[in-house]
Amino acid sequence: MTSSVQQDNTPKAVAGASAIQARREADDPHSPVARFGAGKPLKLDAGVELSHLQIAYQTYGEPNAARSNAILVCHALTGDQHAASLNPVTGKPGWWETLVGPGKPIDTERFYVICANVLGGCMGTTGPASTNPITGLPYGLDMPVVTIRDMVNAQAMLLDHLGIDKLLCVAGGSMGGMQVLQWAASYPERVFSALPIATGARHSAQNIAFHEVGRQAVMADPDWRGGHYLADGVTPHRGLAVARMAAHITYMSDQSLHNKFGRRLQDRAMPTFGFDADFQVESYLRHQGESFVQRFDPNSYLYVTRAMDYFDLAADHDGVLANAFRGAKTRFCVVSFTSDWLFPTEDSRAIVHALNASGANVSFTEIESDKGHDAFLLHEPELTAITRGFLDSAARAFGLPAARQA
Amino acid sequence: MTSSVQQDNTPKAVAGASAIQARREADDPHSPVARFGAGKPLKLDAGVELSHLQIAYQTYGEPNAARSNAILVCHALTGDQHAASLNPVTGKPGWWETLVGPGKPIDTERFYVICANVLGGCMGTTGPASTNPITGLPYGLDMPVVTIRDMVNAQAMLLDHLGIDKLLCVAGGSMGGMQVLQWAASYPERVFSALPIATGARHSAQNIAFHEVGRQAVMADPDWRGGHYLADGVTPHRGLAVARMAAHITYMSDQSLHNKFGRRLQDRAMPTFGFDADFQVESYLRHQGESFVQRFDPNSYLYVTRAMDYFDLAADHDGVLANAFRGAKTRFCVVSFTSDWLFPTEDSRAIVHALNASGANVSFTEIESDKGHDAFLLHEPELTAITRGFLDSAARAFGLPAARQA
Repeated sequence: MTSSVQQDNTPKAVAGASAIQARREADDPHSPVARFGAGKPLKLDAGVELSHLQIAYQTYGEPNAARSNAILVCHALTGDQHAASLNPVTGKPGWWETLVGPGKPIDTERFYVICANVLGGCMGTTGPASTNPITGLPYGLDMPVVTIRDMVNAQAMLLDHLGIDKLLCVAGGSMGGMQVLQWAASYPERVFSALPIATGARHSAQNIAFHEVGRQAVMADPDWRGGHYLADGVTPHRGLAVARMAAHITYMSDQSLHNKFGRRLQDRAMPTFGFDADFQVESYLRHQGESFVQRFDPNSYLYVTRAMDYFDLAADHDGVLANAFRGAKTRFCVVSFTSDWLFPTEDSRAIVHALNASGANVSFTEIESDKGHDAFLLHEPELTAITRGFLDSAARAFGLPAARQA
Repeated sequence: MTSSVQQDNTPKAVAGASAIQARREADDPHSPVARFGAGKPLKLDAGVELSHLQIAYQTYGEPNAARSNAILVCHALTGDQHAASLNPVTGKPGWWETLVGPGKPIDTERFYVICANVLGGCMGTTGPASTNPITGLPYGLDMPVVTIRDMVNAQAMLLDHLGIDKLLCVAGGSMGGMQVLQWAASYPERVFSALPIATGARHSAQNIAFHEVGRQAVMADPDWRGGHYLADGVTPHRGLAVARMAAHITYMSDQSLHNKFGRRLQDRAMPTFGFDADFQVESYLRHQGESFVQRFDPNSYLYVTRAMDYFDLAADHDGVLANAFRGAKTRFCVVSFTSDWLFPTEDSRAIVHALNASGANVSFTEIESDKGHDAFLLHEPELTAITRGFLDSAARAFGLPAARQA
């Protein structure tokens, strides 16, 4: 609350305020920004150059004198740079405060933690909701389609800007894990250790299918207007809400939905024999859809899902995933969750097999959890312990002083 | 082709013709119809009576003199009465010709096979697309919400109409299997044997969630118009297509999507870096969505999914599933498929445990298949063999003459 005038704090008014705030974040975010002028364009996989690149980021902790304690945290599909501090749009805690913070496994009293909004995002890094500095209008679909590699190349520009040559670690889950793998493949000499969680080296047919449903839901909304809704002052919020609802199911396990909701009814003793949200799980999903549209740009949803779909690290290396890591000295720690059906353990095993084949240093853990894919965002004691142990060991090997004993 | 005038046979014209044909089927179907007048209303679980009930059905084979060779086949969510004959709207074979036909396991040379469009459907049985005989307008949302039990009670009225006291067997997969279970619970004395396939005794939270996404997709389409689209001469086809796309993913396994499409591109060597259907799986899903809207009524989709969501056989029997089958003499054969994640084997096991607890005669098979939920509609040799064996044995026990040897 930064305003001192009287406010309408009804949920709808707050939600509306979030939407306006979200729109503003695309150009003028509540975080530091690195701007790269016309002379420093980013060459994209699509074969075009993107100039006037802007990257919004957050940092936590301080770099040491040797600038050797930097950890890059990569966010997932709808995440942002606010990994460990209050989100300015939702007012909620950062998305990875389970792991990142003072005394936590990604310890901000010890490490210099950097997190950037991805290319194509909508929280201040150049994306379809950003104003094209050349035209003065929102990019919309004039924004070129980007890839995970483009996202990583943009992050590399940010690290140059911040004076970080080599990362102690790059870590992330889901799409964040894809970026971790791409970092290790594209910049092996800049990555001392890598922690890809609940991810895959390529997006499966089923995952592409779910993303396509989401995109079709957005594009089927008449208010999408061929991608020009921002110029027209409307937003395809109904389509985006449906997309989010479908996606959200894939982030949870059958068991966690059962544990959380079962077949319990929502604020009623008997079914209504109608199409209201009779069941708690329906009410929950509707809420997920409605709150998402207050913070996320529909076109950005198209771009970032597309980047995940295109990700296929083996295809970029003659069809052999091991080639992506050949000769790398990076230490890897690969983590999966038993109930994750979006990125099942076999996806992680494929990564581990490739790393073994390439002679890399790798440890692997499948964590027993019934929380599904979203487990990487939740309090999972085993993930906490693994992350702490892996980073401690990597830090020692990288020549950092040992952690203070608690 | 019943017309002798020149026809425009382009795919779009054919598809448009299908949509018009589908609209006509709701009132005036290409199959026999049983009509129940104002004096024979159906009492619904919603607490209201539905009068002027119409039931559209198909029969295959002939009843024997004792009328003891009848098998009721129950269709799934988007199925219809055309189980074993050409579908008049799509022009495709019946949906269960893998199992039903002359010499097939559900042998129409031996058995009298009945299949009716479900209550709430759109192929001639009373549903939201039907004309309300009292108002002369389509029911739309004035149609009361129906349940699986309502569907079964309507089928019982049809059997009375056809002079069938007792069924040799009632068989079906998915929502058809729910009807099988409901038949055994509601009319144990009329069901000699029951074959529920790939189904559950209740709809899970995850399944309700997927259905809710589909309903929200339909209702988010501005052309849904609060359910009054038929009166307005429009149709929420974009929303329904998105609903179908999401649902279709759940009918297949991750493995079958991978085997069928993998990450192969559609008619192109390189990705386009755009939002066209670059991947075969995207193109396939879009086609599934587009063809579905030519044959199915959007409101009907709301009603039939809702009936499945409400299904919870244990809840109707003091929370104890075994109570639903207590004292029944029906022989059961329960079948599941290993890769079915919509109705996983544990759902079938719960049915089997309840049947065991109630002292019923039950056999159970989990069939190894990578085809997912839709396996029950496909050529699965083990399903063929099990169905044949189970029906042969039931027929003998029911006093029918033995099958001719092939």
